[in-house]
Amino acid sequence: MMVQSRPPSHNRNPVRLCELETPCLIADRARTERNARRMDALARRRGVELRPHMKTAKSADVCAIALAGRRLSVTVATADEAWHFLDAGITDIRWAVALTRNKHDLCKRLLAAGANLSVIVSDEVSARDLADAFDDHSERIDALVEIDCGEHRTGFAPDSAELTVAAALLADANGVNMRGVLTHGGHSYGASGVDEIARIAADERAAVVTAANRLESRGIPCPERSIGSTPTIVHGDHLTDITEIRPGVYLFGDLFQMQLGACALDDIAVTVLATVIGVDPENNRFVIDAGGLALSKDRSTEASPTDYGYGLVTRLDGSELPGAPIVTVVYQEHGTVEGGQPLPFGELQVGSQVRVLPNHSCMTAAPYECYYVVSGSSDR
Amino acid sequence: MMVQSRPPSHNRNPVRLCELETPCLIADRARTERNARRMDALARRRGVELRPHMKTAKSADVCAIALAGRRLSVTVATADEAWHFLDAGITDIRWAVALTRNKHDLCKRLLAAGANLSVIVSDEVSARDLADAFDDHSERIDALVEIDCGEHRTGFAPDSAELTVAAALLADANGVNMRGVLTHGGHSYGASGVDEIARIAADERAAVVTAANRLESRGIPCPERSIGSTPTIVHGDHLTDITEIRPGVYLFGDLFQMQLGACALDDIAVTVLATVIGVDPENNRFVIDAGGLALSKDRSTEASPTDYGYGLVTRLDGSELPGAPIVTVVYQEHGTVEGGQPLPFGELQVGSQVRVLPNHSCMTAAPYECYYVVSGSSDR
Repeated sequence: MMVQSRPPSHNRNPVRLCELETPCLIADRARTERNARRMDALARRRGVELRPHMKTAKSADVCAIALAGRRLSVTVATADEAWHFLDAGITDIRWAVALTRNKHDLCKRLLAAGANLSVIVSDEVSARDLADAFDDHSERIDALVEIDCGEHRTGFAPDSAELTVAAALLADANGVNMRGVLTHGGHSYGASGVDEIARIAADERAAVVTAANRLESRGIPCPERSIGSTPTIVHGDHLTDITEIRPGVYLFGDLFQMQLGACALDDIAVTVLATVIGVDPENNRFVIDAGGLALSKDRSTEASPTDYGYGLVTRLDGSELPGAPIVTVVYQEHGTVEGGQPLPFGELQVGSQVRVLPNHSCMTAAPYECYYVVSGSSDR
Repeated sequence: MMVQSRPPSHNRNPVRLCELETPCLIADRARTERNARRMDALARRRGVELRPHMKTAKSADVCAIALAGRRLSVTVATADEAWHFLDAGITDIRWAVALTRNKHDLCKRLLAAGANLSVIVSDEVSARDLADAFDDHSERIDALVEIDCGEHRTGFAPDSAELTVAAALLADANGVNMRGVLTHGGHSYGASGVDEIARIAADERAAVVTAANRLESRGIPCPERSIGSTPTIVHGDHLTDITEIRPGVYLFGDLFQMQLGACALDDIAVTVLATVIGVDPENNRFVIDAGGLALSKDRSTEASPTDYGYGLVTRLDGSELPGAPIVTVVYQEHGTVEGGQPLPFGELQVGSQVRVLPNHSCMTAAPYECYYVVSGSSDR
């Protein structure tokens, strides 16, 4: 609800990190590019298209890095994201959240503005609503049916009668292009190890292939078989009969993904730059100007092998601090940082700066207006 | 990092709730006004100024409600908030987060743009830095010293030698107007009952009065003695020798404040409007299009008498649903809702809408671009 009408003062280029207003979000270009190349290579090796989920990065610039040398196509989670990518000239947009009737007008506006929009349908009511809404519309909309591969959030069981009914409604609709099936193995986030993730990856693949084969045996075309989730893509064995993958968080990584074996610590490409605003050597802790809004209140590492609280605190140049301090308490705009061993208060003084590696980069990055970009360990 | 360049479609006025794109944030004007009147009356009864903390509402319109009939003066937590209120013509701005040297240029820009800005100093290094930075600056800056009244986040112990040193540095500085002392009894949020909050309120008051008296006995003026926190203001006995209060969340309330006895359920003035995007009657649950970003991942009610998960779900008109459903799991843009008793799936169908009362309205409201305003139980 706020409008910041004053231009930021930091529009010189380059600028030193220590000159930035804190808290702010730093993206490491070299790491993002490396993460992107790794996933691009995996997709090529497996013979599938890559349609990155841009709910993490929400940036056309990052999308260009993700899809260097490829046709630009994105997955989004919100209408705002769809508009952002369309404005940047990226027209091939897949909105991968169960669509309901109150969003049909929005879809029509996106189509009218030039989007090649595809949506997902996750229940029979919504299939009927979509078919009705586009029956006499001037532009057809692409749709896929969502399959539940075990996460039990939204979507059809792959062998359910409801799936066939909904898919047939879409295939028969005047205004809908039935494009296929899609799933998201999000329960991989709760897996306890790489083996379990690999099993979930197999289930994820099998679910869409089973569903697509069933539908095609009934004469319903399924040219697209799309799966998602960074951990399942990284740890799955193969992608036979899959056409597309939709990972997102791989571009930035985070402390949670690291503990799922989906990235290494030095792959993590977004950090929050913060200022030390209070020190308490007696209790081996300090306070930074990054709290629950700047870091998010995500606690996903709580059940991981290492609990990083609300994030791992490093030096300005990204190097590890003695005592491996983590953010243990967040207030709206304050974070309390504590060390497991004595912290170096010689360098951690009021006014000095630190960087915080996030638990969950999707949640941390979302509220920021922009990234400040560094490359490698440089502080510019 | 996103720019939504398309104007929202809902610029007609009035519009029905069911026509809004979801998720979105709904503010109830009648409740906000009632909450504002109650705090205004309390401040008048206690004989103190009211400088609401606008980190919760972040809106000049809400500020006008909060300060109807009073001089406009605000507390803020961030520079963005300061710019917002200054743009709206509210010049008396108190930035109540420990100021460090990297924010001095920002303060100078705010002063140059017309702000009557006051800042807080929470350690000796920052006092010296502020005195130096404004020594030969064309405009003086108002400053208060922050007192730690027991929260142990930032600030000086009221009886510490460091406090006297820092306050003297400010009082002697060419470019600084030493305005007094300020504290925040934020540890009231962790209190287990009204009696404990009342004790914390007494400590909060005593801390600033003690500090101010000590400083004044050394010839350092302390015309202002400012305290904060909605629970301590509501449950404190008296405010003798206090000049100003800075509560914020009282304007909206939330499920956590309710359980601190700081508001009633029907005082809660912000809700998230969401759409049902999946139903699972067999497991007595459904899924909405509001997740960790729309609701925040705040879990402050976890240790409260009633744990509301990520929020309490009501009907579109705000009335309670049978089964008292709460959001039990959040994903980035999905929320899973479960009921303690059988839920009314006759009315909870895919495409229908619900409202979610937040755990912590400060965290929930912050990321939204705007409020949609309703009055009372109306759905317009």
